Amino acid sequence: MGDSTTENPEIHPKFVTGEAGYILEDVPHLSDYIPNLPTYPNPLQDNPAYAVVKQYFVNVDDTVCQKIVVHKDSPRGKHFRRAGPRQRVYFEADDVHACIVTCGGLCPGLNTVIREIVCGLYHMYGVTKILGIDGGYRGFYSRNTIPLTPKVVNDIHKRGGTIIGTSRGGHDTSKIVDNIQDRGINLVFIIGGDGTQKGASVIFEEIKRRGLKVAVAGIPKTIDNDIPVIDKSFGFDTAVEEAQRAINAAHVESVSQENGIGLVKLMGRDSGFIAMYATLASRDVDCCLIPESPFYLEGPGGLFEYIEKRLKENGHMVIVIAEGAGQDVLAKCMEHDASGNKVLQDVGHWLSHKIKDHFTKKHKMTINLKYIDPTYMIRAVPSNASDNVYCTLLAHSAIHGAMAGYTGCITGPVNGRHAYIPFQRVTEIQNKVVITDRMWARLLASTNQPSFMSTQDITEEKKVEEPRPTQLLEGENCQDSKY
Amino acid sequence: MGDSTTENPEIHPKFVTGEAGYILEDVPHLSDYIPNLPTYPNPLQDNPAYAVVKQYFVNVDDTVCQKIVVHKDSPRGKHFRRAGPRQRVYFEADDVHACIVTCGGLCPGLNTVIREIVCGLYHMYGVTKILGIDGGYRGFYSRNTIPLTPKVVNDIHKRGGTIIGTSRGGHDTSKIVDNIQDRGINLVFIIGGDGTQKGASVIFEEIKRRGLKVAVAGIPKTIDNDIPVIDKSFGFDTAVEEAQRAINAAHVESVSQENGIGLVKLMGRDSGFIAMYATLASRDVDCCLIPESPFYLEGPGGLFEYIEKRLKENGHMVIVIAEGAGQDVLAKCMEHDASGNKVLQDVGHWLSHKIKDHFTKKHKMTINLKYIDPTYMIRAVPSNASDNVYCTLLAHSAIHGAMAGYTGCITGPVNGRHAYIPFQRVTEIQNKVVITDRMWARLLASTNQPSFMSTQDITEEKKVEEPRPTQLLEGENCQDSKY
Amino acid sequence: MGDSTTENPEIHPKFVTGEAGYILEDVPHLSDYIPNLPTYPNPLQDNPAYAVVKQYFVNVDDTVCQKIVVHKDSPRGKHFRRAGPRQRVYFEADDVHACIVTCGGLCPGLNTVIREIVCGLYHMYGVTKILGIDGGYRGFYSRNTIPLTPKVVNDIHKRGGTIIGTSRGGHDTSKIVDNIQDRGINLVFIIGGDGTQKGASVIFEEIKRRGLKVAVAGIPKTIDNDIPVIDKSFGFDTAVEEAQRAINAAHVESVSQENGIGLVKLMGRDSGFIAMYATLASRDVDCCLIPESPFYLEGPGGLFEYIEKRLKENGHMVIVIAEGAGQDVLAKCMEHDASGNKVLQDVGHWLSHKIKDHFTKKHKMTINLKYIDPTYMIRAVPSNASDNVYCTLLAHSAIHGAMAGYTGCITGPVNGRHAYIPFQRVTEIQNKVVITDRMWARLLASTNQPSFMSTQDITEEKKVEEPRPTQLLEGENCQDSKY
Amino acid sequence: MGDSTTENPEIHPKFVTGEAGYILEDVPHLSDYIPNLPTYPNPLQDNPAYAVVKQYFVNVDDTVCQKIVVHKDSPRGKHFRRAGPRQRVYFEADDVHACIVTCGGLCPGLNTVIREIVCGLYHMYGVTKILGIDGGYRGFYSRNTIPLTPKVVNDIHKRGGTIIGTSRGGHDTSKIVDNIQDRGINLVFIIGGDGTQKGASVIFEEIKRRGLKVAVAGIPKTIDNDIPVIDKSFGFDTAVEEAQRAINAAHVESVSQENGIGLVKLMGRDSGFIAMYATLASRDVDCCLIPESPFYLEGPGGLFEYIEKRLKENGHMVIVIAEGAGQDVLAKCMEHDASGNKVLQDVGHWLSHKIKDHFTKKHKMTINLKYIDPTYMIRAVPSNASDNVYCTLLAHSAIHGAMAGYTGCITGPVNGRHAYIPFQRVTEIQNKVVITDRMWARLLASTNQPSFMSTQDITEEKKVEEPRPTQLLEGENCQDSKY
Repeated sequence: MGDSTTENPEIHPKFVTGEAGYILEDVPHLSDYIPNLPTYPNPLQDNPAYAVVKQYFVNVDDTVCQKIVVHKDSPRGKHFRRAGPRQRVYFEADDVHACIVTCGGLCPGLNTVIREIVCGLYHMYGVTKILGIDGGYRGFYSRNTIPLTPKVVNDIHKRGGTIIGTSRGGHDTSKIVDNIQDRGINLVFIIGGDGTQKGASVIFEEIKRRGLKVAVAGIPKTIDNDIPVIDKSFGFDTAVEEAQRAINAAHVESVSQENGIGLVKLMGRDSGFIAMYATLASRDVDCCLIPESPFYLEGPGGLFEYIEKRLKENGHMVIVIAEGAGQDVLAKCMEHDASGNKVLQDVGHWLSHKIKDHFTKKHKMTINLKYIDPTYMIRAVPSNASDNVYCTLLAHSAIHGAMAGYTGCITGPVNGRHAYIPFQRVTEIQNKVVITDRMWARLLASTNQPSFMSTQDITEEKKVEEPRPTQLLEGENCQDSKY
Repeated sequence: MGDSTTENPEIHPKFVTGEAGYILEDVPHLSDYIPNLPTYPNPLQDNPAYAVVKQYFVNVDDTVCQKIVVHKDSPRGKHFRRAGPRQRVYFEADDVHACIVTCGGLCPGLNTVIREIVCGLYHMYGVTKILGIDGGYRGFYSRNTIPLTPKVVNDIHKRGGTIIGTSRGGHDTSKIVDNIQDRGINLVFIIGGDGTQKGASVIFEEIKRRGLKVAVAGIPKTIDNDIPVIDKSFGFDTAVEEAQRAINAAHVESVSQENGIGLVKLMGRDSGFIAMYATLASRDVDCCLIPESPFYLEGPGGLFEYIEKRLKENGHMVIVIAEGAGQDVLAKCMEHDASGNKVLQDVGHWLSHKIKDHFTKKHKMTINLKYIDPTYMIRAVPSNASDNVYCTLLAHSAIHGAMAGYTGCITGPVNGRHAYIPFQRVTEIQNKVVITDRMWARLLASTNQPSFMSTQDITEEKKVEEPRPTQLLEGENCQDSKY
Repeated sequence: MGDSTTENPEIHPKFVTGEAGYILEDVPHLSDYIPNLPTYPNPLQDNPAYAVVKQYFVNVDDTVCQKIVVHKDSPRGKHFRRAGPRQRVYFEADDVHACIVTCGGLCPGLNTVIREIVCGLYHMYGVTKILGIDGGYRGFYSRNTIPLTPKVVNDIHKRGGTIIGTSRGGHDTSKIVDNIQDRGINLVFIIGGDGTQKGASVIFEEIKRRGLKVAVAGIPKTIDNDIPVIDKSFGFDTAVEEAQRAINAAHVESVSQENGIGLVKLMGRDSGFIAMYATLASRDVDCCLIPESPFYLEGPGGLFEYIEKRLKENGHMVIVIAEGAGQDVLAKCMEHDASGNKVLQDVGHWLSHKIKDHFTKKHKMTINLKYIDPTYMIRAVPSNASDNVYCTLLAHSAIHGAMAGYTGCITGPVNGRHAYIPFQRVTEIQNKVVITDRMWARLLASTNQPSFMSTQDITEEKKVEEPRPTQLLEGENCQDSKY
Repeated sequence: MGDSTTENPEIHPKFVTGEAGYILEDVPHLSDYIPNLPTYPNPLQDNPAYAVVKQYFVNVDDTVCQKIVVHKDSPRGKHFRRAGPRQRVYFEADDVHACIVTCGGLCPGLNTVIREIVCGLYHMYGVTKILGIDGGYRGFYSRNTIPLTPKVVNDIHKRGGTIIGTSRGGHDTSKIVDNIQDRGINLVFIIGGDGTQKGASVIFEEIKRRGLKVAVAGIPKTIDNDIPVIDKSFGFDTAVEEAQRAINAAHVESVSQENGIGLVKLMGRDSGFIAMYATLASRDVDCCLIPESPFYLEGPGGLFEYIEKRLKENGHMVIVIAEGAGQDVLAKCMEHDASGNKVLQDVGHWLSHKIKDHFTKKHKMTINLKYIDPTYMIRAVPSNASDNVYCTLLAHSAIHGAMAGYTGCITGPVNGRHAYIPFQRVTEIQNKVVITDRMWARLLASTNQPSFMSTQDITEEKKVEEPRPTQLLEGENCQDSKY
């Protein structure tokens, strides 16, 4: 964390420590930089629905424990502030002017999150002024806004995509904060991935610098599941479900033809979660290639050798490749091939070409390779039931936090409980499939694919992992991935 | 826990305590009652897949923390033994003779669990003798067994149901244990709900009494999600997903006709989780009735009044009722009706009848009520991707535990990590929707339905909750349900 | 046809005859009762889309042949007027005031038909005044209308149900025609089944009596497929598709338990098409019971005997029953049972009860019967792709006909070509599964179920068939059902 | 037809003529070239299922009329021999040795056809010797066969693909007929498209030349629906249904981003039926490009102009392109581009590239184009209910025909009735979307896309159509496409 602190001197994680190694990594609050803010009773206390639920308000001391696998005498480790409604809030319903923006690529559940922010603000807190920012960050300054009401959003969770549009880039801190200020917006909900949340962090810093009473709430969105700390990102379950269709088609194609190979490219620029879970769920995959685990094509222990082996044994095989896998091999090949780079941009096409070339030309072996890229068909579906419930909790947690004055943080489930997490905790590092972990071992066992690794690789890979702030803070080897 | 200890003097929970309020509730082990058992190196250490994953074996001291929401100075609370492969095992592959039995009603994922036990035993531990017990407990003594191999189970996860059949009841401890002994079975995997696991517990006690080297591994199955301690039961996600179809149909029917009412009965004899989650996921439900929350029909604040209000406002409504809801009202009505009890057994039919009667006869108001009972269509679908991954981990955890000599326990995820949990912890109490909890408040807020409760009810309900061992052990009010 | 002519002296089928036994059964036209109506060029001739399609307009002499299976020298038989756009129309766009009404139960595709009438009138003929009548026939006089524009209906084909509501009954000829006259409506699209089209016929007669320039276009809707002459009704394909889910669930339930019986009730009051096609498509059904084919329970050759046989052979079975099947047996049973009639209204419940009773009480044989009634889940789904295309053609054909002055008829495909058919041809008789036909023989062969028939039954059944006007007109035995 | 007769002197269509312009285009029969063949009573007459269906056997004079749209005095036109069981058959069950081969690409329903041939032969005719030829034509001489029984094929209709494998090419007439002769096979079922049926025709000629008592039955398979005469090919409905998913995803992607373009490539090398029907069913498509209708990119009336117009109006659009569309434009572009041809093979990639290039580079306009190629995901799904019933009838018709001695023909529905059609009638010409027909006009009206045609194009296109044998024989303009 040393480095990042040097780079962003503004970002001071708020740490609170306790006995037995207890650490709370707290989030910013409006009162940190605006003195004497008045508070109001939470309007939820008058809600008939909550009248019967006495324990509804979150105790101010509640924190969520990150470390679940412990020893009798291990330190308690890091905690986050529990999400949920507070007894007192920092905004009055009539004064609230909220806005919602969605950035980056599509992800199942975007519309559900939008719907639940609107309905939650309206029904729980009586907020009526809610704007949709059209088409991502640049919508703040270059386009008209879209008024959002419970009626407008009523059915949108049954549709894929985002009704307020999205885009990449377009982040201009001054213009955005000017616009927020000019419109009198005081609750900003920013739904987006890694880059978007970095942008949100900068917006928060500028708002703080200007001393504005504006809460900035990040809602992490990444279909790749590459956001750290939180259990999983919304839409991920739906994406894995949809990916099954493509894998199943690849399986059917491969078994119906001699030396049939079904090749499926799935999302995952830097992390292979969708590929890994889809492979584990499907059971029809013979080889899963992800960015975290390097592979090579030629020679002993290489992919071609494995393909040949499988075709000889079974006559067919299915390969799943995450879009970010094999970038190093691909880069090397491009140097070899000299020109025609355009062809090679897509790892799926590149691998198709390589496999066909290897077996047809070099081995005079007829293979029937079918390449499937279901990316946009996966991204665009509506969220499934499980993601719908997730999105509801996420939206509500974000609302409760912002109304209670928490700002400069994202919301997400940690070990099943929703918590508030400082921006820098999720933007500094990426969540990756840990390939020295049991989940990856399970995958290897399930596919029986080679690890494509020499001892040297493994050692190298560990070196890269070690400086992770997470690991350092947790400080011991009993913690591993979720399962 | 006092009572149960009196009833089953054999069951001694193994407690280990530590500093800062750390408690480990451990599970039985073969070595508890058989001295000097030899151990063997885990064959997984030679598995090429695991060669690269050095941290694969679970540290013997790893435990999983149950309490996630904590205060800086709150006690650490209860922990369970972490599931996973151990360095040393208590069985040699050639000596293992495993069996699998499925009991009770269908649940999505049964076939996936069976598949993964078979494939896991075979591929990870080299076990080849695996029997399917045909048709539940009584299959041990009254029917032939079904030999299970990876080939036989290869595609079964794509089908609903259970390929080895199931039944209710049929538990005869002596006959079952005799049969286990006669066949030389030493690993017993028992997949079933509450009652089945109670039966498994008794089988374990008998096996222990006879001093047999037989590990009994329970795999909790309940589509209702009413097993406590674990995060959720397998098949639950799939069931909620499928329930959406019925709710959606009810919604379409209701909006297409004047005073349209769509009534959907969902599973849930004692707990309303499916009804609650399906309601939260769908957003089209106006009223959700579950066993945990009593309701009444007539008079102010009653269901009829609410229905009338909604029909006047919107012209249509959707009601979801769990099969176990309203049993007290139903019982009272039956006394009134004197005869014809058969008609009234199904709460959905009963409520249909009551509503039609009330509005048509008493109010001369034409209503169009459509009743949908999707129960068997939900139970019989194959598990979705998320449940498939869950079932795989569950099966593998159960295998690792049994091979490592743990017995008399069930396997399941606690806060996302798989753990071994003693039988009595899951059979003594039931998991229920806590209607003084935030999740239920969320539902009430989402549907805007009345709570159907007087202050008296709430107090009474709390009284019932208090004696729960869980609550007593946890001892403080900062812990609530998962979200 | 003699009888019906006596009853409705107004209805004169317009017959045109030709050589080689050619008969055209023509439909009424506005010019039949209003002299000297002006005509206008069809605005489609200026449509850029149609500019390239020279043969777009239907030749005035085109007729559609009903008899497809012929002999070299057999008479040509009956024909209908071909549907499609005419060179000249009887309405000017600005003068058109159209209305749409949907009556009866839900059926997949209703919204698609509504959408396509609105979009077709608007885009093809430039009609802008289109009203939705709210909630069926009674909406004409008791409720406000719903203005329909292409924007309003844009996405409705992706939803089940009908956005303009529906109801049964409520037909009051005078009030309806008064209302049509008062509002200045001159195109009336009536979507509904048997009874609805009879109503439409009476409305047409009254309009003709009053000499109004109002075209009445019937669009036949029946999920049961019981409308004669036309190839199949819209929504039928979708319904059969959805029915598979229930049958599949019944199959899974039945094979997972000892003596498992899955019983599925499908739609079909008077005709068993859904049950028959779902059975043929699914291949998992052991017995299909439909209204057209009587069955009995007890004794040799009865259903119980067959069930017992199947359970002995396979251990499980699936039964599909159409809702109208076995009404005679059910009626007899009711007399026997004396009271408790309410229970027996649903043939599925009744049969469940009977089977359980027979095997459990009388045979002391444990059976596991699961009863599934997917009716409302089938009716409420959106139409599939095939039905969407069908609904589009149907709506367009109805529009073209009405604009061209044809009235008092329904539209539908005859041997794949859309045609205009007089009301009485589809309301006088019902389309039924002909159980002396090859399709039923195929089903019997597929399920291997007994025919539940004595020679006497067969003879009787033929007697009933004989007086059918269809048969008389067609006059020979070489014609059979579609396939 | 003149040309083809010259090329294949062996092929003499058997024409029978009658009064009023009646023509029967008959199929070959074993008795044409083998004198004095004995016949046997059809074993179906003893089938209990058929006992009740007296009219089950097809009258020897039954023919199916191809021309449905007629005038009072138009000639009756062409007919085909009706399919179905005959009173007498030319094979005895014990002597039958059947084989099944599947060739070409995957298509939904292949497994259903295989299943129903096996079950139909077995259950209806008592045939037990049925072989699956492994992997297409070459499987006859280079691979082992797969014995097929009702048990083996029981569940295969629920899976996509073909269990007996498929391949392209591999046709070696002598080797195949030698193998048929050596194995004593006398019923040959050949499932495949255009090229495959040409191969089947040659096999039939060789069999006839050798005087073998072997019936060759072709079952036309083409997901593209490009086989003429028959109503539609099996799997087509399922393919259109699945194509909706891709179009829907393209729609969601396009509306969620500024200047969003969703581009979907669908199957259709020479004919655009899938693209056309999917467009008509979906209603979300702005432009549908098919092989039959040429288009151009640049200049007035070109595709780029239309895209720009739509983006300005709506901000987004969806384009569907059949894989064979625009081959002429694509060919020209390749000449321009000089090298890098590999990139341009796929019309979808080519068009993506062209559109991006045009708008980004030339117009400095940011567009968000998402390209979806769902081909293999569509081909590999199991057939839907409607196709399942279709496949059953197809298989049964083929069986009845072969058993009755008909050979050298394919089976398929003509105006809804199954008929036997000589090979040359389906292999000489291809079924294409007639773009001067009403169905295409409907599509143009539905999308509002330009026709991309000058008057010259239309005239040219008509010239190409004229020499079609179909047109010549039918000889008049009242006949158009199905709807």
